[in-house]
Amino acid sequence: MTLIVQKYGGTSVGSAERIAHVAEKVAAERKKGRNIVVVVSAMSGETNRLMALAHEVNPQPGVRELDTLLSTGEQVTIALLSMALENIDCPAKSYTGGQVCIQTDSQHTRARIQDINISKMQNDISAGRVVVVAGFQGVDANGNITTLGRGGSDTTAVALAYALKADECQIYTDVDGVYTTDPRVVPDARKLDQVTYEEMLEMASLGAKVLQIRSVEFASKYSVPLRVLSSFEEGEGTLITEEDKSVEQALISGIAFNRDEAKLTILGVPDRPGVAHYILGPIAKIGVEIDMIVQNIAEDTTTDFTFTVHRSDYKQAFEVLSMTAKELGAREVKGDDKIVKISLVGVGMRSHAGIASTMFETLAEEGINILMISTSEIKISVVVDEKYLELGVSALHSAFDLHSEK
Amino acid sequence: MTLIVQKYGGTSVGSAERIAHVAEKVAAERKKGRNIVVVVSAMSGETNRLMALAHEVNPQPGVRELDTLLSTGEQVTIALLSMALENIDCPAKSYTGGQVCIQTDSQHTRARIQDINISKMQNDISAGRVVVVAGFQGVDANGNITTLGRGGSDTTAVALAYALKADECQIYTDVDGVYTTDPRVVPDARKLDQVTYEEMLEMASLGAKVLQIRSVEFASKYSVPLRVLSSFEEGEGTLITEEDKSVEQALISGIAFNRDEAKLTILGVPDRPGVAHYILGPIAKIGVEIDMIVQNIAEDTTTDFTFTVHRSDYKQAFEVLSMTAKELGAREVKGDDKIVKISLVGVGMRSHAGIASTMFETLAEEGINILMISTSEIKISVVVDEKYLELGVSALHSAFDLHSEK
Repeated sequence: MTLIVQKYGGTSVGSAERIAHVAEKVAAERKKGRNIVVVVSAMSGETNRLMALAHEVNPQPGVRELDTLLSTGEQVTIALLSMALENIDCPAKSYTGGQVCIQTDSQHTRARIQDINISKMQNDISAGRVVVVAGFQGVDANGNITTLGRGGSDTTAVALAYALKADECQIYTDVDGVYTTDPRVVPDARKLDQVTYEEMLEMASLGAKVLQIRSVEFASKYSVPLRVLSSFEEGEGTLITEEDKSVEQALISGIAFNRDEAKLTILGVPDRPGVAHYILGPIAKIGVEIDMIVQNIAEDTTTDFTFTVHRSDYKQAFEVLSMTAKELGAREVKGDDKIVKISLVGVGMRSHAGIASTMFETLAEEGINILMISTSEIKISVVVDEKYLELGVSALHSAFDLHSEK
Repeated sequence: MTLIVQKYGGTSVGSAERIAHVAEKVAAERKKGRNIVVVVSAMSGETNRLMALAHEVNPQPGVRELDTLLSTGEQVTIALLSMALENIDCPAKSYTGGQVCIQTDSQHTRARIQDINISKMQNDISAGRVVVVAGFQGVDANGNITTLGRGGSDTTAVALAYALKADECQIYTDVDGVYTTDPRVVPDARKLDQVTYEEMLEMASLGAKVLQIRSVEFASKYSVPLRVLSSFEEGEGTLITEEDKSVEQALISGIAFNRDEAKLTILGVPDRPGVAHYILGPIAKIGVEIDMIVQNIAEDTTTDFTFTVHRSDYKQAFEVLSMTAKELGAREVKGDDKIVKISLVGVGMRSHAGIASTMFETLAEEGINILMISTSEIKISVVVDEKYLELGVSALHSAFDLHSEK
């Protein structure tokens, strides 16, 4: 019999009414003769409420107690969803992370799953019950409650799907699938029926907020078929799976973009070994993540060095870089926090040349100046002035024929 | 080193501010060189909020899921109190019922504690940490979350005090101790420094709402010294312990009363064996609790039979009794839901005659008619018209010299 793991996020279970709606969706799926394991998040708003309470009693609450506190959010939801299922005569049983032994390491607030004991869940499934499991949480070897960090419920769902050898892991969210690009920017963006893990990973890391990177990595590593669907609308969503060699791949699956970028350039740096580390080391040390890096040979003895950071880290990074410039005797530090990154993503790129030149040509035709370029096997990213974001994305969306066929 | 178990109820931990206040009280006690284990309830209002959510998704939620839901209330409090303690540099560690293995039977919503594993708590105590335990909850042998029912947190505290061989179990509440009677009725009622378990049990069962009967029974059974104190005011509270033979007992410890009483009389019942069961059986069957019972021999062949019930059960009991009366061929059914019960309680009664006659005389002097009388070894209860409650309690309070000495 088919076994499906479904995951519903905070918005999908944000009220008693919505929980009742989720119960109906689950029961309907079960009536099709499928076994269902449901993973739920805390009701939307609950985590913020609990965090606010924590900060009222302690500005820097300890991580062990924070995990004990926050894990109550999902515990409330599993109980309510099980009640809602029983209310429509669908037998159900709830489990906290600890109760199904979702064993993690002891890294509170960002624990990693090590093992899951599936025997209880299997008994329930055999007895025809829907199993409702709290996402985001586990227990360490000493019985301390742990949480998995951002997107933890997605990770729980994928881990359960793997452990139970489920046929599919369905992530219900407030969008109805993965699109060729953000429909708010390009209104006729097309929903994709299928993308590969790799493409999804690139899209997620480039700012498409449908799925957490970690859960896609996990699904990819263990080949768990993942599907993104809407809690609120009917539809097949988007299936994320391994590359299907038998089907001719589209050149490009989608266009991702990231608004929150800023770039920094240090000019006239003495060109000697180790200089990149000398420049980036202090930035990394203050916890700022560096994204793209480009180095140009400028003159005979000096070089120019450019990199991008998250826009919120711009000021801090600028200060640190200015100090480094002084130490190195560099000529100048320049910066721009009004830039965005636009990326083409597609496994089809591997076997097709000319994608990059089409991209550059399209942008040139629109008069868009490219400030930086970075490429990977299945992705090309460019940095442009933020005022060109919508124009650039739309032009590329047309150039690569991604529009819906309606 | 002295070990104290302290329990704080929902009102005492009703807000972040109050939790911070409790943390200060606990830390102050610890600075006196005492080891402290704290048991807490859910923040006031939280249980009602969760119950309302449950009833929104299911008018008759299952008890297993209800326990999973409600137990989150205490889990929130233990985390917050531990954070608050750490915030004032008092090392602390929180435990859910499951984490310290408060093993119960599987009677959800009214489970009984069977065993407690104290090893984790002892490690923490040895390491100088305050141990914060969730009241009201446990786990059964299969790892299901259970709750102990009404007053469950008091029971948890007493059970922990027994298991840990604590020197005292302190129940913090919103009153500063046990009084000779309700100070709202008799303004100069005196706080008692000490009462016996038996007296406390009688007082609690007679409507003094300071402590849950079950926790007093538990404390009495295992000789755990119990102290009732205020969370909000300083003071020694009232110690509840075994009878101290060396000290001369006061005749009367206190006067309890219960406003929510109603009485029912069935007149002219054929006087034959089994008739009491015939009358009371149907009442018990519909779940109505019967308190006092009095039977008078009226005439040669018939008898009158009177009993009291909770006022909210009056109408239902009256209907059932009327049917029984018809079946028995009894003459009449009468009722009165405007009555109250006043009780004298004191272990000193055992060795002193004349308490009852002083009581009856005092009431007679005030022109108060006694409708029913019932006695036990350490208690005399009378039923009177509700309009005489305040007058009766005040008069008896004076007659037995219970006033404070100020």
